[in-house]
Amino acid sequence: MQFIGSILERLDAGEVVIGDGGFVFALEKRGYVKAGPWTPEAAAEHPEAVRQLHREFLRAGANVMQTFTFYASDDKLENRGNKLSFTGAQINEAACDLAREVANEGDALVAGGVSQTPSYLSCKSETDVKAIFKKQLDVFVKKNVDFLIAEYFEHVEEAVWAVEVLKQTGKPVAACLCVGPEGDMHGVSPGECAVRLVKAGAQIVGVNCHFDPMTCVEAVKMMKEGVEKAGLKAHYMVQPLAYHTPDCSCQGFIDLPEFPFGLEPRILTRWDMHKYAREAYNVGIRFIGGCCGFEPYHIRAVAEELAPERGFLPAASEKHGNWGAGLEMHTKPWVRARARRDYWENLRPASGRPQCASMSVPDGWGVTKGHADLMQQTEATTQDQLKQLFDRSKSH
Amino acid sequence: MQFIGSILERLDAGEVVIGDGGFVFALEKRGYVKAGPWTPEAAAEHPEAVRQLHREFLRAGANVMQTFTFYASDDKLENRGNKLSFTGAQINEAACDLAREVANEGDALVAGGVSQTPSYLSCKSETDVKAIFKKQLDVFVKKNVDFLIAEYFEHVEEAVWAVEVLKQTGKPVAACLCVGPEGDMHGVSPGECAVRLVKAGAQIVGVNCHFDPMTCVEAVKMMKEGVEKAGLKAHYMVQPLAYHTPDCSCQGFIDLPEFPFGLEPRILTRWDMHKYAREAYNVGIRFIGGCCGFEPYHIRAVAEELAPERGFLPAASEKHGNWGAGLEMHTKPWVRARARRDYWENLRPASGRPQCASMSVPDGWGVTKGHADLMQQTEATTQDQLKQLFDRSKSH
Amino acid sequence: MQFIGSILERLDAGEVVIGDGGFVFALEKRGYVKAGPWTPEAAAEHPEAVRQLHREFLRAGANVMQTFTFYASDDKLENRGNKLSFTGAQINEAACDLAREVANEGDALVAGGVSQTPSYLSCKSETDVKAIFKKQLDVFVKKNVDFLIAEYFEHVEEAVWAVEVLKQTGKPVAACLCVGPEGDMHGVSPGECAVRLVKAGAQIVGVNCHFDPMTCVEAVKMMKEGVEKAGLKAHYMVQPLAYHTPDCSCQGFIDLPEFPFGLEPRILTRWDMHKYAREAYNVGIRFIGGCCGFEPYHIRAVAEELAPERGFLPAASEKHGNWGAGLEMHTKPWVRARARRDYWENLRPASGRPQCASMSVPDGWGVTKGHADLMQQTEATTQDQLKQLFDRSKSH
Amino acid sequence: MQFIGSILERLDAGEVVIGDGGFVFALEKRGYVKAGPWTPEAAAEHPEAVRQLHREFLRAGANVMQTFTFYASDDKLENRGNKLSFTGAQINEAACDLAREVANEGDALVAGGVSQTPSYLSCKSETDVKAIFKKQLDVFVKKNVDFLIAEYFEHVEEAVWAVEVLKQTGKPVAACLCVGPEGDMHGVSPGECAVRLVKAGAQIVGVNCHFDPMTCVEAVKMMKEGVEKAGLKAHYMVQPLAYHTPDCSCQGFIDLPEFPFGLEPRILTRWDMHKYAREAYNVGIRFIGGCCGFEPYHIRAVAEELAPERGFLPAASEKHGNWGAGLEMHTKPWVRARARRDYWENLRPASGRPQCASMSVPDGWGVTKGHADLMQQTEATTQDQLKQLFDRSKSH
Repeated sequence: MQFIGSILERLDAGEVVIGDGGFVFALEKRGYVKAGPWTPEAAAEHPEAVRQLHREFLRAGANVMQTFTFYASDDKLENRGNKLSFTGAQINEAACDLAREVANEGDALVAGGVSQTPSYLSCKSETDVKAIFKKQLDVFVKKNVDFLIAEYFEHVEEAVWAVEVLKQTGKPVAACLCVGPEGDMHGVSPGECAVRLVKAGAQIVGVNCHFDPMTCVEAVKMMKEGVEKAGLKAHYMVQPLAYHTPDCSCQGFIDLPEFPFGLEPRILTRWDMHKYAREAYNVGIRFIGGCCGFEPYHIRAVAEELAPERGFLPAASEKHGNWGAGLEMHTKPWVRARARRDYWENLRPASGRPQCASMSVPDGWGVTKGHADLMQQTEATTQDQLKQLFDRSKSH
Repeated sequence: MQFIGSILERLDAGEVVIGDGGFVFALEKRGYVKAGPWTPEAAAEHPEAVRQLHREFLRAGANVMQTFTFYASDDKLENRGNKLSFTGAQINEAACDLAREVANEGDALVAGGVSQTPSYLSCKSETDVKAIFKKQLDVFVKKNVDFLIAEYFEHVEEAVWAVEVLKQTGKPVAACLCVGPEGDMHGVSPGECAVRLVKAGAQIVGVNCHFDPMTCVEAVKMMKEGVEKAGLKAHYMVQPLAYHTPDCSCQGFIDLPEFPFGLEPRILTRWDMHKYAREAYNVGIRFIGGCCGFEPYHIRAVAEELAPERGFLPAASEKHGNWGAGLEMHTKPWVRARARRDYWENLRPASGRPQCASMSVPDGWGVTKGHADLMQQTEATTQDQLKQLFDRSKSH
Repeated sequence: MQFIGSILERLDAGEVVIGDGGFVFALEKRGYVKAGPWTPEAAAEHPEAVRQLHREFLRAGANVMQTFTFYASDDKLENRGNKLSFTGAQINEAACDLAREVANEGDALVAGGVSQTPSYLSCKSETDVKAIFKKQLDVFVKKNVDFLIAEYFEHVEEAVWAVEVLKQTGKPVAACLCVGPEGDMHGVSPGECAVRLVKAGAQIVGVNCHFDPMTCVEAVKMMKEGVEKAGLKAHYMVQPLAYHTPDCSCQGFIDLPEFPFGLEPRILTRWDMHKYAREAYNVGIRFIGGCCGFEPYHIRAVAEELAPERGFLPAASEKHGNWGAGLEMHTKPWVRARARRDYWENLRPASGRPQCASMSVPDGWGVTKGHADLMQQTEATTQDQLKQLFDRSKSH
Repeated sequence: MQFIGSILERLDAGEVVIGDGGFVFALEKRGYVKAGPWTPEAAAEHPEAVRQLHREFLRAGANVMQTFTFYASDDKLENRGNKLSFTGAQINEAACDLAREVANEGDALVAGGVSQTPSYLSCKSETDVKAIFKKQLDVFVKKNVDFLIAEYFEHVEEAVWAVEVLKQTGKPVAACLCVGPEGDMHGVSPGECAVRLVKAGAQIVGVNCHFDPMTCVEAVKMMKEGVEKAGLKAHYMVQPLAYHTPDCSCQGFIDLPEFPFGLEPRILTRWDMHKYAREAYNVGIRFIGGCCGFEPYHIRAVAEELAPERGFLPAASEKHGNWGAGLEMHTKPWVRARARRDYWENLRPASGRPQCASMSVPDGWGVTKGHADLMQQTEATTQDQLKQLFDRSKSH
């Protein structure tokens, strides 16, 4: 049986902690999230759908139930175009209740999450941006989540502000940027980003979203090297996309022409996930989960790959033979012949799309850096806002 | 508001009926079905997961809730290797209850389903095979489903036997083979298959599973031509894969090396589904649904494409802008520029897998037809069983 | 040593006759033929270049030197836009002299060739079209070529006329259409086309150009079946493209968007040629050569594959190890490891073009047949010409 | 009319000098060079074939006729397995005579070439290696070539030795490594390599072979930056492959599984060559040619792209319309529609090989650097030789 302690006790003990997958994309496919605004009002509107997804990730092996509060800051909810029937507080509270309910069905922890804000991107002051985080945080404190995650930040400066706010609760704080090996939107390297986050008080640092698993693992490896070189200590986490993105530029899969409605051919197989989990483990990452594109079976594959280290299989493995072993019961003999590890490890799956290429040209490819670039990367709509944001970035 | 009548009243009135998607594959990814045996014990074991999937398809626009009873015949359940905690009757009953519960939340009909049996494939007699169908049917009658579907038959002979049994209930009967334009496993053409099924009493005929949407539509078109040429009348249905399969041979996606754990790159986008729905409609098919690989958003795309004909959008469209319109609210301006129909209609999505080909060589490709072939297509394990099956096929 | 007889003596004796490759494309790449008009004035303008190419094909194993007289009919030469320094007769005579000169360096035969004319496509009368052929033929008779080939005809009717003219010389006549398994531009099947050509007097029939080797072999196989079914006798030849064309429609590679300046990724390897040569031989074809895209090493590969049947290797094999054996002398050990048959037989060569698809959509894909189609297929520019051509085609 | 001066006068005057293409690969396809040994005995054995290829490159626009003396050092010729009918001196002399004969037909210069030796790779002394170069050089002096090129060196040290020998003649010296942006086989960067070569006396430096055009241009750009940073001056040249190689590792196309008999799908189109020529020019390279895979039409495309800068078109452009203009004379109207620049510039040509991937995994991918690596990169066959070579490399 697994030791159930706080997130830091687990990581300090060398335990592998498995995260859940991205709710926004999974629930979009199930019909409960709208692509574009990407807001989580379903937590209040359709709790049964959110609860079921939590449960599937738990069953797949996740030790962490992240509250479904992505983009649930008030400024973002107001921004989304059409009016919602619930307030920001109601949505955040409902999300906490659902996460806790399912976490209690197993041994999982509840993590309250905040993410990048329109306020920062439109150049509001540090005080204003922090006030936005504080509002979500009040709910997390009231609902007594187990720890906090600041995630999906393209600008390390905003992530640092978020960490500074979250630290005030006394709860453990994790911080993830959505960047790759090239660093944040102002070119701050992953190593330097990680150092700033650790200095701000984050006990766990890493990356989530925007890039495929191997790229994210590479970026976290650079973070780890940076932190160690600075003589600091931290735990590491990674929650990548479940999409292959060898062809994206520094803003990740957002730039790909397939984002967000044509990404299907890029979805990782469960066997790709085995490679990811092993690589992340080898690099020294111990909090290993997923973001957009992850379905429960992807998390199960991570848990199955690391079953030797963890000492047990997830509940959902009752419905999954090791490396395809269930196929031994298939009707057709030549499908039964596929019930073996080397078959799936070496398969290079075809797309069935002979009139499609294997790589795309990202939008904005080759655009020169600087003001013009920043315009693209933000919601700044006036020259003044843009100038402020750019100057601010240079002050570091 | 939509007219709610029986399946035949709806089809006779020219209404478009939208089916649901395949439960076996969707629930495998969610952790409730085991690939290999593919049996539906989750209906009894994890009703909340099955109920939620029904609800998502209903919300996506489905008018038909198929009972999750695929491969739930007693002979199949016994065959699956490990013992189940529930009897076949309990599983079938639970499945009926779940389908009815969710159907009542909307305007959907409940369809009880039977599929091909190990008994037929191991050359049991017509009497024995029919007895197997009868057992499932008793549950459907007791639970008073609205109509019946015999589906996933590779051999038209067995499908005819199924129809003959189902007809005894007096309920409307639909029959689907899992064949493509090349016809059933003995080379009986789609047109001739359809004629036999209609003569046996099926009021709705079509195909499901095994091939991609366009191939299935082509096969149903051939069925329709056969039926019309024979001076008969029927309604038509199609429930294809959500995978691109340009490279498969006569046994469909089972033969592809990617089946079943490496099919991700082949998954259709929602925009592919628009084309499918339109083509199916144009060919004269009015019962349009999905099988393996379909997720709720795929069914929603079918419903959205046919919204002009049906006069309304599905509930889940509240979370989906028309042709990507929701992207107008995206943070990045160049993603907002993708909020238009021609962008998505013309996109050829890349696989992100430059070391993978776009087409595979199917297993058993080029194998000569006849006894050897039949060996592969069946569970017959002795020469005698094989001979019986082969001789039987020639008697038609 | 090989028996040197007439083309018919050779074929009657069961000998394998190897053709040369296409001069037009090879000399375009060398800088002597202009793509678009595709006329062979280089025979007179740059004889050294044409002689050298003949010599390379001879050295590669070719038994037939085709005169470089493709599109050298007077009506075509006049059509080509810019004025030439030589008359049609001069070009045809120079081509004959070059072919004979090189043929005499080995054991090769000289074949005089005629091809489809603008006169036919603009609906000139049978008399006019035949007069065009007659003019080229006068040169071939004067220069005493060994036999005649009427090739690259899209309309069997015009090919029949050509055969009727060529027959008057008493020399052996071969006839090739540039069609695939779907038949000629009026839908006359390959079998029926072959029967008409044999009845007109051709002793050798087959196809050249427009499709990849396997498709051409399939079409010739259909010709053979047609001829045999009609109780007739003939020899068979095939001279396909050296390009993979799985995605082209009935007009072959002309329809592909890559024609003619982007075909590089489609070029067959020498190992593809081994498969082609074996397949052609197995089908019963004994005159096996090449058309557009063939380089000398492609013909050498054909000769090497059929060396066991022929009893000898071509001269150019002195510079080519069997199945890559020459690599045993390579500097790098891991390249030396490639010096074996199974390595090259199983290699699936990558394109190095990750942003390109593997199949194209042909121009005019899906265009309905009939008048509109015919308009595309011809040089007819008035409705009257078109009508005549269409009516003429129906009279057969 | 073009100014005809020495190579340095031309480059000093800012003229664009166009090189020829690689003879070894082109003549392998024509049947005169054996893959594996890759030696140039055809210069003596089949002068007509070599002369014709020179003439085609001249006609395509080349200003430099390189003597066909690649791998014509005595140690290499002796190594090749089967005995030759000519001595090394005879081969080198014949090659000089052919180059001069054709150069005199136009305005071209003759360049005598030496390349990397087995002597260096088997750890012979500097004295021994230099003696090998000296022997070839004696022929070049006797035949009075216009300048000298040391090319195809994987180790900058050997290239420096070659330059030191060549400098003794007083003739201008160019030096090319076959390396990419990662530098030579001991990890010496392109910039540092170039500095060493310039210091040794080379007036022109650059790279040839092993990588595709864009990669080679990138490496030469790094050379230029290195030379300029060191306060030195030089001219720059580039002679890349005509194959796309996005997937190769530091040893270039040798490592690709397709080398050398399956490279066809990677061949550049003429339009790719336009992009290459423009990029090379923009980077400041003025001696622009080709290596393995280049056919005359590839060089013509380089000359056509740079015609505005050079002020004239090459002779072979008489048979080539600008950007496909010749297609205006094509028979089919939809092919005529392709006679325009934007069509060809934007075309992404398909491979016609749906069962092949677009990228390969190079042999030896991921092998650790050091001794093991060096073993692969050399002909060293004993541990002692290897140790010498490795130690030698570290002394720089």
